[in-house]
Amino acid sequence: VIINSANFTEEIAFSTPWFDLLARTLPGHASPMYSLKLPDYVSVVAETADNQIVLVKQYRAAVDRITTEIPSGYVDPGETPETAALRELAEETGYAADPATLQLAGVLTPDTGRIGNRLWCFYVKAHKMAAPPAPEHGIESLTCDAPRLMELIGKGEFECALHVAVLFLCATRGFLKINSLT
Amino acid sequence: VIINSANFTEEIAFSTPWFDLLARTLPGHASPMYSLKLPDYVSVVAETADNQIVLVKQYRAAVDRITTEIPSGYVDPGETPETAALRELAEETGYAADPATLQLAGVLTPDTGRIGNRLWCFYVKAHKMAAPPAPEHGIESLTCDAPRLMELIGKGEFECALHVAVLFLCATRGFLKINSLT
Repeated sequence: VIINSANFTEEIAFSTPWFDLLARTLPGHASPMYSLKLPDYVSVVAETADNQIVLVKQYRAAVDRITTEIPSGYVDPGETPETAALRELAEETGYAADPATLQLAGVLTPDTGRIGNRLWCFYVKAHKMAAPPAPEHGIESLTCDAPRLMELIGKGEFECALHVAVLFLCATRGFLKINSLT
Repeated sequence: VIINSANFTEEIAFSTPWFDLLARTLPGHASPMYSLKLPDYVSVVAETADNQIVLVKQYRAAVDRITTEIPSGYVDPGETPETAALRELAEETGYAADPATLQLAGVLTPDTGRIGNRLWCFYVKAHKMAAPPAPEHGIESLTCDAPRLMELIGKGEFECALHVAVLFLCATRGFLKINSLT
């Protein structure tokens, strides 16, 4: 039998500047279920006219290493996911999107067991800004073509599952051409 | 400039039965970065001889709704990821895997910004057990073919980004045949 109705009691067990740890106690349960409450995520596959995908490298404390990812971040209060995606792209990489090419590939849930927000997945055409803003502290941008990105995935060097999911949506919707993993 | 070396100080800010909330303070930072410390995840795409993919439905408190996902769970202490994948498949669905067909599609990181564990992504051929164990409380299993699964993804009814990432790896490695999202 699937539990269908919630009517849980909820409290914030711990608060951080970036997220709250929620404790939700379901009817008939002695112990709460814990999950993260945080703003929605956006991630964007930005591709140049010569089919280069824009990536970011940064140190990630959660995994204690430098990762290679697509541009991503939180939707700020009052912001649309579309605006957030283009803002994160510009802030993190110095690439400007052509807003008319922005496509929503889908809306996913990052981790249904642990995280309560949504992940807005975008594709857009982009070009290097003539005068990019000062790069965000600690973030470097780079570009590579899709075959090279698939190589990075195959070697575990592009490892964020959220961003692999964005690639899936962009590829299966026909926005991005990818090849096989070998 | 990318931060390269960590040497953070670390403490457990909050503890739950399923994960710890870690607070890591980097050198020169006043405030810690918070992330979840938890056992590795496994997820498995299990496909029957007639190309049905085995799915699970369950209520998820983090998102307060019933989700449709692939079988998944934690790697228990002392267990290999391979054993965990086959155990979760059997416990959650009553399907038995043919262990000789088990393939590791890749190892990802669920959320490099918030979660410190790994996600082990498997593909396996499976069949309905003659005498399945009592189903796990609150979990129902179902099957569908790949075109139907793509429909569910397109409609946002198969929404867990972690599991979409597993499908990406299985599809691009040639384990699973999928079609376009429309």
